[in-house]
Amino acid sequence: ALEQDPKELTRLLEELRAADIAELLEDLVDQQDEMPSVLSLLEHLPLTRRAHVYGFLPGWLQARLVDQLSDEALLAILEEMSSDDRADLYNLLGEDRREALLRRMAHREREELKRLASYEEGTAGAVMTSNYVAIPSGLTASQALLRVRQTAPDAETVYQIYIVDEQGHLAGTLSLRQLLIARPSAYLDELMIKDVIHTQVETLQEEVARLVARYDLLAVPVVDENELLVGIVTHDDVIDVIQAEATEDIHKGASVGNLEDGVSRSPLWNLYRKRVAWLVLLVFGNLFSGAGIAYFEDIIAAQVALVFFLPLLIDSGGNAGAQASTLTVRGLATGDIAFKDWGKLLGRELLIAAALGMTMALAVSPIGFMRGGEMLMIVVAMSMTIIVLTGSLVGLCLPFVLDRLGWDPATASGPLVTTLIDSFGVIIYFGIATILLTNI
Amino acid sequence: ALEQDPKELTRLLEELRAADIAELLEDLVDQQDEMPSVLSLLEHLPLTRRAHVYGFLPGWLQARLVDQLSDEALLAILEEMSSDDRADLYNLLGEDRREALLRRMAHREREELKRLASYEEGTAGAVMTSNYVAIPSGLTASQALLRVRQTAPDAETVYQIYIVDEQGHLAGTLSLRQLLIARPSAYLDELMIKDVIHTQVETLQEEVARLVARYDLLAVPVVDENELLVGIVTHDDVIDVIQAEATEDIHKGASVGNLEDGVSRSPLWNLYRKRVAWLVLLVFGNLFSGAGIAYFEDIIAAQVALVFFLPLLIDSGGNAGAQASTLTVRGLATGDIAFKDWGKLLGRELLIAAALGMTMALAVSPIGFMRGGEMLMIVVAMSMTIIVLTGSLVGLCLPFVLDRLGWDPATASGPLVTTLIDSFGVIIYFGIATILLTNI
Repeated sequence: ALEQDPKELTRLLEELRAADIAELLEDLVDQQDEMPSVLSLLEHLPLTRRAHVYGFLPGWLQARLVDQLSDEALLAILEEMSSDDRADLYNLLGEDRREALLRRMAHREREELKRLASYEEGTAGAVMTSNYVAIPSGLTASQALLRVRQTAPDAETVYQIYIVDEQGHLAGTLSLRQLLIARPSAYLDELMIKDVIHTQVETLQEEVARLVARYDLLAVPVVDENELLVGIVTHDDVIDVIQAEATEDIHKGASVGNLEDGVSRSPLWNLYRKRVAWLVLLVFGNLFSGAGIAYFEDIIAAQVALVFFLPLLIDSGGNAGAQASTLTVRGLATGDIAFKDWGKLLGRELLIAAALGMTMALAVSPIGFMRGGEMLMIVVAMSMTIIVLTGSLVGLCLPFVLDRLGWDPATASGPLVTTLIDSFGVIIYFGIATILLTNI
Repeated sequence: ALEQDPKELTRLLEELRAADIAELLEDLVDQQDEMPSVLSLLEHLPLTRRAHVYGFLPGWLQARLVDQLSDEALLAILEEMSSDDRADLYNLLGEDRREALLRRMAHREREELKRLASYEEGTAGAVMTSNYVAIPSGLTASQALLRVRQTAPDAETVYQIYIVDEQGHLAGTLSLRQLLIARPSAYLDELMIKDVIHTQVETLQEEVARLVARYDLLAVPVVDENELLVGIVTHDDVIDVIQAEATEDIHKGASVGNLEDGVSRSPLWNLYRKRVAWLVLLVFGNLFSGAGIAYFEDIIAAQVALVFFLPLLIDSGGNAGAQASTLTVRGLATGDIAFKDWGKLLGRELLIAAALGMTMALAVSPIGFMRGGEMLMIVVAMSMTIIVLTGSLVGLCLPFVLDRLGWDPATASGPLVTTLIDSFGVIIYFGIATILLTNI
């Protein structure tokens, strides 16, 4: 109905925020497959706003939409987008399309786009924008303020100003707040902070996020290999990075590979692929437990009641180990603990795990007694204590070991820890059982 | 040595950033127990800077430090702190200390501090600051700019300006950027955005963070139950909230209770307490697996080789289930999926889990054949497929079920899913074995 009344539609769209329009469009495509309506809705938006909405759309939808656009229409949108969104969209295009677009661009824009699009995903270069306010160092505060007013409409943020020398090196920074309260005739050189917190284009995005979080920054400037200022990473992009990194770590913690599109949009094949590798690997890891069981088959056959406690004991070790590894991995990720704290943490874990193991041994003892008398109770309680202790220590150490091997500590996931500890648990439990029960 | 040379020390401290000084002090206390040095270092800092450093210190250290200060010295620091940090520190004090401090304060400050300190932890009220720029709506752009310059030194951010009516209701907002490029004689009423994204004092902090992330805001205004503007939550506090919420979810995912101080600082007793509750609960959950095993004791005694595959099969179900629950919980937390998507997700999971189960059945079949011939191979392959399928579906559904019960979906952790699926796995595996192997 709305499509019959373009005026009403335009009025409605004006009242919505870009992020909300983007979500509306996403729902239209995703739940009702209304691609034509989406395209016509977008055409109702003025160009600047349309480009802004594009910036809020997920990559998969951007890619589908621009397939329907002429090079000219796409170029118009690209030109209105912020430089980081533009580079992201450009990277979604096929080789031919890219060539066609670049040919239509002015030399300067072309080079800038190619440069921004060339940085590796997950680095400062890939998340930064080149729409920042850079001001030559020779100016006064009032001259600088005039410059800020002129660049205000195009810059991603005008609230942090970067001062550059003649070659373009980052020389200092000044907040707009400081500029506003400064004496108008004061020179930037005297006002600016010279020791600027900055980062390199190839720095990992999570480290950039950590800088911004640690120093409560609005944006952090990015320099290239020649120390030339080439961009800034702003607080809103940092929030996205922190969200994405947490999601990646949480997925890794359950042995799921990194999903770029989120669970709701990932193609089924992709989800399968990201899950199956670890699952199959862990199946083979579990063969060690099987081998342990095969080795102790005689005692199991003689005392089938022992099997009753098998899942309980090995799971308890796995759970305690998963707790320890998760606490360690997250502590390392947030900077709460460092690799050098290893020894201190081990000492603490030893105490906690011993207390946990004994508590759980107490909890399980009455059941051991009921199922098989005093001796079985002792076997189960001893096994529980040692398995929980071992599990916790393995869980604590694994992230450090993986890091030494050059892997991401987050690979020390619950499933991996569980599988490892299962085989220890089998050996500890049936080993103790063999010693204590066959002597009777 | 530095302490003997106060001038050199002062110079060094001037070069450091507040966040770095705070970390230095934390290390001094934590690793070398150098409380007296820390106190004297702090005394070397000018008051404003000292208050700023306090804001970066963790709660436990703030509490220890202020124990050593006179009421007067503490009051001086409190007055220089930003209003949200002040309320946090105030909440760390004992009842007597609070009373003593309040008595020394002017009426207005006292009421404001009491109000800010009264909001429940984890709500917008508890993270907001009252140092914002509010301007009456009748002014022109140039008058407003003058006001901004005057309040700039005290406000947490001056880059988003809030316009209030005579009663103090939030009437509109304007960015400093818009104010700078506006015609100086234009009235704020014409310039301002009237439909302001805002939140309530009692809104949960994670929802506030979601607003800021979604609309790329610099700050979000907070209103009380009478729609009066009472504070703002700024981007840097939002980053802290997002980090803390991710940590909480990650810990919950491994069945660890919420740790306020981080793993490195939590007292041992606290860490024990946060871990033991779930571990013991899960021991009792595991009794269902034990009961299943007891029920099938005859077939186990007859075919001890079956035990070989027990850890492998139940673990595989648990791992697949942990993947499914983790993907669901995180998707719900980030808003990537919603509770209404339940049916669609179930359909997708059914397909993926069937494919995963069959792949893993294929992987494990040769081992089944080697250990016990064709029939055991069939039992193991069938069990694997059904257990992985069941595990995945349980993992997917559990967060939704918990939410329905009024629990946090994040409680659907790896350990809980594993324990649940273990008992299903035992029944599925030995059930299939009983049917297929006792007929021979």
